[in-house]
Amino acid sequence: MKADLVIKNGYILTMDENFTEYKNGNIAIKDGKILDIGENINYEADEIIDAGGNVVLPGLINTHTHAAMTLLRGYGSDNPLKVWLEQYIWPVERKFVSYEFVKDGTDIACYEMLRNGVTTFVDMYFYENAVADAVLQAKMRAVLCTGILDFPTPGAKTPDEGIEKTKDFIKEYKESRYIYPCIGPHAPYTCSPQTLQKAMQVAEDYDVLFHIHLSETEHEVQDILNRYNATPVKHLDNIGVLNDRVLAAHMVHPTEEEIYLMAEKKVKISHCPESNLKLASGIAPVPKMIEAGITVSIGTDGTASNDDLDILGEISTAAKLHKGYNKNPVLLNAKQALSMATREGAKALRLQDKIGTLEKGKYADIIIIDINQPHIQPMFDPYIQLVYSAKSTDVDTVIIDGKIVVRNKEVLTIDKSEILQKAKKWKEKIICGN
Amino acid sequence: MKADLVIKNGYILTMDENFTEYKNGNIAIKDGKILDIGENINYEADEIIDAGGNVVLPGLINTHTHAAMTLLRGYGSDNPLKVWLEQYIWPVERKFVSYEFVKDGTDIACYEMLRNGVTTFVDMYFYENAVADAVLQAKMRAVLCTGILDFPTPGAKTPDEGIEKTKDFIKEYKESRYIYPCIGPHAPYTCSPQTLQKAMQVAEDYDVLFHIHLSETEHEVQDILNRYNATPVKHLDNIGVLNDRVLAAHMVHPTEEEIYLMAEKKVKISHCPESNLKLASGIAPVPKMIEAGITVSIGTDGTASNDDLDILGEISTAAKLHKGYNKNPVLLNAKQALSMATREGAKALRLQDKIGTLEKGKYADIIIIDINQPHIQPMFDPYIQLVYSAKSTDVDTVIIDGKIVVRNKEVLTIDKSEILQKAKKWKEKIICGN
Repeated sequence: MKADLVIKNGYILTMDENFTEYKNGNIAIKDGKILDIGENINYEADEIIDAGGNVVLPGLINTHTHAAMTLLRGYGSDNPLKVWLEQYIWPVERKFVSYEFVKDGTDIACYEMLRNGVTTFVDMYFYENAVADAVLQAKMRAVLCTGILDFPTPGAKTPDEGIEKTKDFIKEYKESRYIYPCIGPHAPYTCSPQTLQKAMQVAEDYDVLFHIHLSETEHEVQDILNRYNATPVKHLDNIGVLNDRVLAAHMVHPTEEEIYLMAEKKVKISHCPESNLKLASGIAPVPKMIEAGITVSIGTDGTASNDDLDILGEISTAAKLHKGYNKNPVLLNAKQALSMATREGAKALRLQDKIGTLEKGKYADIIIIDINQPHIQPMFDPYIQLVYSAKSTDVDTVIIDGKIVVRNKEVLTIDKSEILQKAKKWKEKIICGN
Repeated sequence: MKADLVIKNGYILTMDENFTEYKNGNIAIKDGKILDIGENINYEADEIIDAGGNVVLPGLINTHTHAAMTLLRGYGSDNPLKVWLEQYIWPVERKFVSYEFVKDGTDIACYEMLRNGVTTFVDMYFYENAVADAVLQAKMRAVLCTGILDFPTPGAKTPDEGIEKTKDFIKEYKESRYIYPCIGPHAPYTCSPQTLQKAMQVAEDYDVLFHIHLSETEHEVQDILNRYNATPVKHLDNIGVLNDRVLAAHMVHPTEEEIYLMAEKKVKISHCPESNLKLASGIAPVPKMIEAGITVSIGTDGTASNDDLDILGEISTAAKLHKGYNKNPVLLNAKQALSMATREGAKALRLQDKIGTLEKGKYADIIIIDINQPHIQPMFDPYIQLVYSAKSTDVDTVIIDGKIVVRNKEVLTIDKSEILQKAKKWKEKIICGN
């Protein structure tokens, strides 16, 4: 059979459960999927990419962000949380968030993520139709939800309106292979039990993910304990919304009991180490959660709180942080860290049959990393070098659904000068206040 | 007066004590030094660099590394410390460390550091004449010392031999404006009090820095306490070698009393956060040390323990880590973090009259950072964006002693393909064991 595209001569890390590698491997791609993969396969193809011995990986997966917040990158950073939110972020969001704001901000985010080798991301913000438009133009994959809160948002006056809009959004994109709609109740401190229960009903009815911020700060834990006499994870369990559809972002402060409860209920985690550090939320017990059998993936959070969308950087931070914090140099090794950004990311999104590893039949979401560089050589172990030495700027080629979207370190689907103009335009508006 | 080189149209952050900025500034350079700097200066020059509104900073300073260990980058990472040292690092060092190994490894390190905007670094290893040769070819600045230990090393059979070789090295380079020789007793657990005292005598006699690893691990603290009935800093004070010449790398576990003692004695610190995390040494009390008035600079440590030589990455980690660990989002703000890599770095090396800020009369060690990129825009505050969003690969131009050594993100003084060949050659030797 003739392939559409063949990648040859790659040092392929499939990132499957056995960490199968092909040291001089080829991948044949047809109709957006991996037709075949291995060392001794031979296909004719319309297009051939010679990887030249570079490392070939599944596309990276960012399981928590607020993409449009690129327009607030670094805005008010280094202030106390309350000042940052009340004097910087919220006033600007109230004034400016619109279809145009979200589309422009997400364009910038998509550019940055593509350049960094991210092929799929999870977004929770407002005007998700604008996010979907940006994602489709960028030719990326994304799991998208509108943030649902009990108070008025730029997207909806009431939580019920947010839920209805989510249903419409789900119906619109349910069959897309690029956009995976889901439901996004913001957090247990901004959503009543009723809102959370209604949201879970939608998740069940439409078979989608339930994405929520959970146990991010000690303040939240205390607040939920005061209000509901239960810690956040227990609270969700008590009201019947803790199950295998839950993708919980942050999870910095679970109790031991909550860790075992989440493992039992197959809750998935999006660990956002750099945001948790920068906002002083704390350090999540990731090694314990992994040991308990929980699927832990990795997220950047929005660029107002991080301030980048760099998944390779995020796993590098995670791999070092948990060793140092727990004073144990064998915790979260390079293979585990890279799995968080690939295979475990796909599991967290319930998309493990489609993405996350390089295997026959999966979508061809593939990145090639240029290892022929002084800061990566000599390379004794590719996992170690990717996690501790490589930079996201070493991503040379990105293929999503079999289509080349980054080549020779240039993003092909988004016009760089155009988005830089947009960034500058929004900066002026935000500074001038209109 | 005519200048040799003028940088015009830069967003100049001088990094002086007042954080003076010139938003549309120029720098005139003559004889390797800053002749003039400001917004309304006008000089003819042989060469003009148009910074095009990009950010202009003092060259970054890496105050602790073992440069040649690039050849062991990632080698044996993720193992317990004892396994890593005894089965990976030490056997290879015993077998291979030579002039050639050190020269080749340091060439790679210099390339990586130049590419990352580092203009001055501190090195402690063996065969420092090879390091000096590499530094001079790269046209960098460096503070260099041979590691002195009480047991035989690749450089010397006895500590006295190490000290004698250091004296010769100091005499050879004492007048250089690129190489600043110093003395490097390895650590209190590898050097007897007599060795440390002899080393300090040399530092005093020749007016050089005394560079040492200090209080890196809890194991070291306990060991020194057992041997000398004092914690490491107190021990150095007890034997008379704690003063303003001491540049102490790591300092992860000082007591409160030791922090005040170091402030009083004007000891300088090289904080190496990523190495301390990856090797599970712990998290240094940097905010407390800065508050006590100690000069805290930043170091990468060697690439066998980090595994990169990326100072912008290191300050980004530091700025986030200390907020998260101490649960306080205003600790180590962006200006402080960037100061650690510039002004405070120069103070740590006792070179504050020569480098570390952009001021008239100082050496022209200058970098230009390309901010016109989607992952940096919109830019509300240059300090914040440099620390939390920019990457070392955004360094566009590096000037050392008035000479352009990196331009358009290409290193001009080191042949990339040649050092990649060397890296591969050494990888084969190390894997084959001969």
